[in-house]
Amino acid sequence: SPAGLSAYVAVSQLLGLTLLVATGAWLGRYRGGVAWQSPLQFNVHPLCMVLGMVFLQGDALLVYRAFRNEAKRSTKALHALLHGLALLIALVGLIAVFESHRAKGIPDMYSLHSWCGMAAFVLYLLQWLLGCGFFLVPGASFPLRSRYKPLHVYSGIALFALSIAACLLGITEMLLFNIRDSYSNFVPEGILANALGLLLVAFGLVVGYVLTRDDWKRAPLAEEMALSMDFKTLTEGESPGGSQ
Amino acid sequence: SPAGLSAYVAVSQLLGLTLLVATGAWLGRYRGGVAWQSPLQFNVHPLCMVLGMVFLQGDALLVYRAFRNEAKRSTKALHALLHGLALLIALVGLIAVFESHRAKGIPDMYSLHSWCGMAAFVLYLLQWLLGCGFFLVPGASFPLRSRYKPLHVYSGIALFALSIAACLLGITEMLLFNIRDSYSNFVPEGILANALGLLLVAFGLVVGYVLTRDDWKRAPLAEEMALSMDFKTLTEGESPGGSQ
Repeated sequence: SPAGLSAYVAVSQLLGLTLLVATGAWLGRYRGGVAWQSPLQFNVHPLCMVLGMVFLQGDALLVYRAFRNEAKRSTKALHALLHGLALLIALVGLIAVFESHRAKGIPDMYSLHSWCGMAAFVLYLLQWLLGCGFFLVPGASFPLRSRYKPLHVYSGIALFALSIAACLLGITEMLLFNIRDSYSNFVPEGILANALGLLLVAFGLVVGYVLTRDDWKRAPLAEEMALSMDFKTLTEGESPGGSQ
Repeated sequence: SPAGLSAYVAVSQLLGLTLLVATGAWLGRYRGGVAWQSPLQFNVHPLCMVLGMVFLQGDALLVYRAFRNEAKRSTKALHALLHGLALLIALVGLIAVFESHRAKGIPDMYSLHSWCGMAAFVLYLLQWLLGCGFFLVPGASFPLRSRYKPLHVYSGIALFALSIAACLLGITEMLLFNIRDSYSNFVPEGILANALGLLLVAFGLVVGYVLTRDDWKRAPLAEEMALSMDFKTLTEGESPGGSQ
């Protein structure tokens, strides 16, 4: 592995775990904890969104860097699986907020947080379906895959950034709804939730750096290179084994 | 210019102008307009931040793509100038919010918006100073420039994204402070401000796409190529004329 990559991946995982702990601490210490069939159902929402749309989505993006010496086939399966799990957990988080709104008679989808968050979720689901269709299910030709890949990679990073932005908006909404009057007195809950926001940004920055650094891109393994040459000759298209 | 690039740049400018109009419409129609020595001083803040930290910052990032056939020297000067102007306008926006807070007795720097926004501004200023030091002032050797450049490029895009996120947080704060009770009834001001948020996201996505698309990176002009070869031989370092 290239020098420094492991350290950055380790830092990202440390940040990821810290932001999960910070979310748990906020909900547990100041918001009464988490439970499904209760007025605490709302709290399932931030927990699931941070876990699914940020931590797992970020880790799914990192697999091509973190497991760069594994066969592409297995890495791709893990990539799809982690994104699928992230989507499933995010779906639970969405159900939680809609059910909790219904129970309390709060209207849905009026805020900028809900617009950005729903856009992120729907586009993320679409991106996952397209990704499975192009890269996992046999059928799409290699030139077609190569043509779609840059868009897949850009959209992946952009949706990750949008997901983090939606979380920041959610934190701000939650604070202004719950501690509007004491927030400006620098109460501990406000500081903790702000720190969670900065952790989300830091996680995004580190993951983004690892993903976009040119010399850290996954190079095709020797055997993939040979295979890719064969296909190139056969199809006269671009190489499917290029860097991810 | 590569096919499609001009169209994307045109769309980015259309989005950029639309988001300025949307900001003006929001402040003018629903927030009483903009003025310096008055209770309306606060409104200078969102206007300057959208203009400086988003529109001008985004356009400064685009110059190496939009003016790809101009000499690198002039393009670089324009890049630095636009960022400088963006910083200046953002500074006016910052002064406006601090003065307005003082006049109304509102504490500073307690919210996640203020933390993210101040981090974006301070890091943006630092990035500008480092950029001038490395690339504009003669002195830094070409190998040093080449070593710093990838970090400069990544930080530039990341800070642009953080600036947009800070604006989204600001919109949410402003709505929850001003129309908290009617926001959930889908009142026009809420819809307009939410739409402004989506426009900010769309502007960021289009600019980000133009910047990161591999085959749209600025290739060195013929004369720069020759110059770069000479320097390469002289310094035995990396080429300073590589794609921006």
